[in-house]
Amino acid sequence: MKAELIKESINLFVEKGFSATSIQDIVDKLGVTKGSFYYHFKSKEALLMHIHLSYIDDLLKRQKTILETEKEARGKLVKVVELLIHDIEKQGALGRVYYREIRHLTPENATTIREKRAEFRDRIESIITEGIENGEFRKNLEAKMITFAILGITNWSYQWFNPNGDLSVRELADMYTDFILHGIQSKES
Amino acid sequence: MKAELIKESINLFVEKGFSATSIQDIVDKLGVTKGSFYYHFKSKEALLMHIHLSYIDDLLKRQKTILETEKEARGKLVKVVELLIHDIEKQGALGRVYYREIRHLTPENATTIREKRAEFRDRIESIITEGIENGEFRKNLEAKMITFAILGITNWSYQWFNPNGDLSVRELADMYTDFILHGIQSKES
Repeated sequence: MKAELIKESINLFVEKGFSATSIQDIVDKLGVTKGSFYYHFKSKEALLMHIHLSYIDDLLKRQKTILETEKEARGKLVKVVELLIHDIEKQGALGRVYYREIRHLTPENATTIREKRAEFRDRIESIITEGIENGEFRKNLEAKMITFAILGITNWSYQWFNPNGDLSVRELADMYTDFILHGIQSKES
Repeated sequence: MKAELIKESINLFVEKGFSATSIQDIVDKLGVTKGSFYYHFKSKEALLMHIHLSYIDDLLKRQKTILETEKEARGKLVKVVELLIHDIEKQGALGRVYYREIRHLTPENATTIREKRAEFRDRIESIITEGIENGEFRKNLEAKMITFAILGITNWSYQWFNPNGDLSVRELADMYTDFILHGIQSKES
């Protein structure tokens, strides 16, 4: 039941927004009582925090594996971009809630999530810095700003990309890693 | 009074979200009555539509001027990216409402805005196509996907960029046009 509650909530949050969705709306979709909801989550905000935490913890875990596996900055960056883009297929609705509804978390919970997001971002920044220092990437880049540009490209794709359309996630990921690498690679590499 | 109503509403929508902000909240901020609100807007949604329309109509107008003034694809693209990034300084909060709250418009109004957004996007796509055809940009680019990538970079900057921080909008715009041009330029150009 917990998984169904999460799934239906995500769909409703995407469709109507977090504020406009009531616990009653969620349980009505599943034909269960509010008791079932409160058995799993103490509030609508607790559910939203659960969604945020599971999303970012999973990304951080998979990012860590990439950093431990790939040797070059270029390879690390490609895999992290692929990780984010491939997620659209499985996690599209979840991603939209994650990017849009953080302001409805309690201040403490929002801080926790922001710190984890910053960790994910800092690790990308470290990849860029590493690439600049070892000559894979151009010398005149600002690693922090390039990191935000990359996250802009990948995060925005959650808003418009339709994985059931003409283009596959694979093709999108290839196109975007190609664009990003051309944008930052040094001529020699 | 209309301008003040719009300004306070935008601040409240950014802070609390559209759904969680009441007309009462808006008029309380200004110390006026609900009558003042209804004199200018027939509903909270009508105000939201006003915000969306004025934002996109202004962007379309300025984009048109750029297209009529610049000769090369490269110059057109740089100016459009600058237009979007420079707007953060003046229009940051407005931009965040614009990107986030479109789902709270009526279906007809949302369609009107989506059509205008599509026009803005299509014009960028035409610049990319033009550049591919005349050899300024690489041959193997998909103009549509590159357009979304560029909009991802600029739109995302509304979420994180602080115009009062260490980096000026000018520097950010230069960095991003440089990154984008490296990403798409043909070697010869």
